[in-house]
Amino acid sequence: MKKFAVILSGSGKLDGSEIHEATLLLLAIDQEGAKYQCFAPDIDQFHVVNHLTGEVTNEKRNVLVEAARIARGDIKPLSEFRAENFDALVLPGGFGAAKNLSTFAFDGAEMTVHSEVEQAIRAMYVLKKPIGAMCIAPTILAKVLGNVNLTIGDDHATAEVVTKLGANQVQTENGDVVVDNEKNIFSTPCYMLKASIADVYEGAINMVEAMMEVLNDLRLGDVAEI
Amino acid sequence: MKKFAVILSGSGKLDGSEIHEATLLLLAIDQEGAKYQCFAPDIDQFHVVNHLTGEVTNEKRNVLVEAARIARGDIKPLSEFRAENFDALVLPGGFGAAKNLSTFAFDGAEMTVHSEVEQAIRAMYVLKKPIGAMCIAPTILAKVLGNVNLTIGDDHATAEVVTKLGANQVQTENGDVVVDNEKNIFSTPCYMLKASIADVYEGAINMVEAMMEVLNDLRLGDVAEI
Repeated sequence: MKKFAVILSGSGKLDGSEIHEATLLLLAIDQEGAKYQCFAPDIDQFHVVNHLTGEVTNEKRNVLVEAARIARGDIKPLSEFRAENFDALVLPGGFGAAKNLSTFAFDGAEMTVHSEVEQAIRAMYVLKKPIGAMCIAPTILAKVLGNVNLTIGDDHATAEVVTKLGANQVQTENGDVVVDNEKNIFSTPCYMLKASIADVYEGAINMVEAMMEVLNDLRLGDVAEI
Repeated sequence: MKKFAVILSGSGKLDGSEIHEATLLLLAIDQEGAKYQCFAPDIDQFHVVNHLTGEVTNEKRNVLVEAARIARGDIKPLSEFRAENFDALVLPGGFGAAKNLSTFAFDGAEMTVHSEVEQAIRAMYVLKKPIGAMCIAPTILAKVLGNVNLTIGDDHATAEVVTKLGANQVQTENGDVVVDNEKNIFSTPCYMLKASIADVYEGAINMVEAMMEVLNDLRLGDVAEI
């Protein structure tokens, strides 16, 4: 059974993982016959946003503890992630990817990526294992890996940043998946576009299906090489 | 286009709405070609639970504000709910249904139901509009409506309570939906059983599909009566 690692960034689109994207990713992995293990860095959120008013509150919340809400408690600190134990890695979107896992929301092309997130991506990349990213999360792959084909939907300002970081941004529509075959990178726009929750599911299932196809081909490839 | 009202109880299975159940319910409603509007009571949560450790914290959180994370900000106080504006009502599960919307978690058969939740259910029931409940939420329907056919999965203690409240509890398996045709009540067990996220989706889509069938039949029925 193929095993996906999922890096969450909190719970809620304005200060953590986008809940629909994260949940529908887990659904897609399960429906495609694979398993998942959630991870998150054990750090404070950049801030907490009241999702009713959109205003920043004076609370403090921890990324791992809040992400545990989406993972139903079955989540590990990202420091415990080992690339050799997983077949694939996915980062769902939400502002947590741009505020907690990286500083994209504040620094644009000058962004930094949390060291554990960067290490996880690099470790999977070196092992040629598929990496997926949804919504705004492909910005992190652009920063870490540079010259990759990806999509962040059709947002002009974000497209400019990822292009500056060396990536090739492909404009997409709801449910589309951009596959960088050479580098094994998969991305889908989700709520970067005006999307319904069924559109987000479409993107998630299409992305996981494309990743599973590669994983199954790779397995055949390994056998053929023996 | 049919319109579903969804009553959330926070965001997180231990102190609010179960995130997968709530999200997959919204997905199912969208996939079945209907619209949804989320509601939640504007009250403090009974308590806040750290979903990593399972321990109660000393934080204070508001049910409506936290539920807004699942609803992506598009949520209304339950006090604004008007039954005449909706075709159907659904309550997803999670301990929020048993701690915030009602006191089932503490009081069992002696439970009380938040007045706005009770009014919403009674108003829909009087208008003969379909009402759905997932996971532990059918306990609320048992308390408010008494003699209805419903399922809470196979949990013996919970089954005893709903039976005491006058309901007819039907043991079910993953994805099953119990329909009380006379009273227009729909329920599905979700995480009351040992279930995968794909199982929960199966229950959600089956329940919404069954509700849509009744809604479409009712429309035909109305036409036939004219």
